[in-house]
Amino acid sequence: MPKQVDHRERRETIARALWRVVEQRGIAHASVREVAQEAGISHGAVQHYFATREEMLAFAMDLASERTSRRVAEGVSELGDPPHPRDVLRVMLTEMLPLHPDARVTSRMSAAYVLEALHDATIHARVRDGLAHGRDLVEGIVRQAIDDGHIGPDRDPATETNLLLTLTGLTPLIELGVIEPQDALTAVDQHLDRLFTGPPGPEGGGAHRSSVTSPGPRGGTR
Amino acid sequence: MPKQVDHRERRETIARALWRVVEQRGIAHASVREVAQEAGISHGAVQHYFATREEMLAFAMDLASERTSRRVAEGVSELGDPPHPRDVLRVMLTEMLPLHPDARVTSRMSAAYVLEALHDATIHARVRDGLAHGRDLVEGIVRQAIDDGHIGPDRDPATETNLLLTLTGLTPLIELGVIEPQDALTAVDQHLDRLFTGPPGPEGGGAHRSSVTSPGPRGGTR
Repeated sequence: MPKQVDHRERRETIARALWRVVEQRGIAHASVREVAQEAGISHGAVQHYFATREEMLAFAMDLASERTSRRVAEGVSELGDPPHPRDVLRVMLTEMLPLHPDARVTSRMSAAYVLEALHDATIHARVRDGLAHGRDLVEGIVRQAIDDGHIGPDRDPATETNLLLTLTGLTPLIELGVIEPQDALTAVDQHLDRLFTGPPGPEGGGAHRSSVTSPGPRGGTR
Repeated sequence: MPKQVDHRERRETIARALWRVVEQRGIAHASVREVAQEAGISHGAVQHYFATREEMLAFAMDLASERTSRRVAEGVSELGDPPHPRDVLRVMLTEMLPLHPDARVTSRMSAAYVLEALHDATIHARVRDGLAHGRDLVEGIVRQAIDDGHIGPDRDPATETNLLLTLTGLTPLIELGVIEPQDALTAVDQHLDRLFTGPPGPEGGGAHRSSVTSPGPRGGTR
């Protein structure tokens, strides 16, 4: 079914053009007209694939989320088997920060989309569901890590999840050069080290494990 | 000099109209035309006070920052004398979160401005300087608190400052209703409780002080 593939490819080409517009000029410029120009195709052709600007934005946002998920999955696949929950959370959190070009594109897209959501009910529901889903994933990992003794049983899973997600608050500091990428990674590691201080579990979790891995994969992330 | 006062008042009226546009419709709508309409004055009159859209945005942003600073100053003035650094940081951090209408306006304005900064060199320098200044203020408080024994001497002031500022990462979760305002405050307090766990200083700082104040002013912030 080559036609089907073409259709998907064409939509992705348009979505990537939209990302570039958002990254370089801001979401205010993400009109069908400017995106068509950036993609090097006609205005009518874009309209053939997306009936409205909103539809185009939604597809571009979904594609950005997929891309982030794929990066996380790739990062996790490089960890041990089973991966340590500290390392999984570290991959998830650092891939949400604008620390490399691909992550910068998806991070800007998602920041712009959150702001759009405040004034558009359809986008609101979509972004909210995406955020809530991501939050659930993190809370699941935290709960399992508590059960497995990697995180102390005195920790509240919901609050720890919210605190982990606040690490995305490093984004504006990194984007505007107020702190260096390495400072952001130090903060993430410090936060994770304090979370994973439970008594060593059956697999030897807790503070020991995290300090042992410290100079390894983490140092290489830079 | 009534003329001078009028001038300032008129500019503030326009800036507040711009805030409403940004809050309700998004910064893409913050054009001279739409702001004039929202303010109920003529397009030409707005141009009399602001030569360009950028000038209007910059003034509105500065006014939003002043307003946040004033709220922080008011909050701090209600604390003990001298105020405990934990309480000062709590006021600063919670006033940056969209937990009440006035803070929501300034928070949205500042999120939109950060995104604009990515595509405009002048705004970039301005927002960067503002963020760096705020970061310096927080780091100064953290360093003093370490010196005074409220925070453990083993803590790194720069990393602790970055971690405190990440708490603004709660903003999208609150804005989109993924977590409740009370959950955000719980996370902020949990973070501060863990930071202020140094041995009690000469004024009796550390964990003891923070848990004693817990049910008081904090409970009332809701």
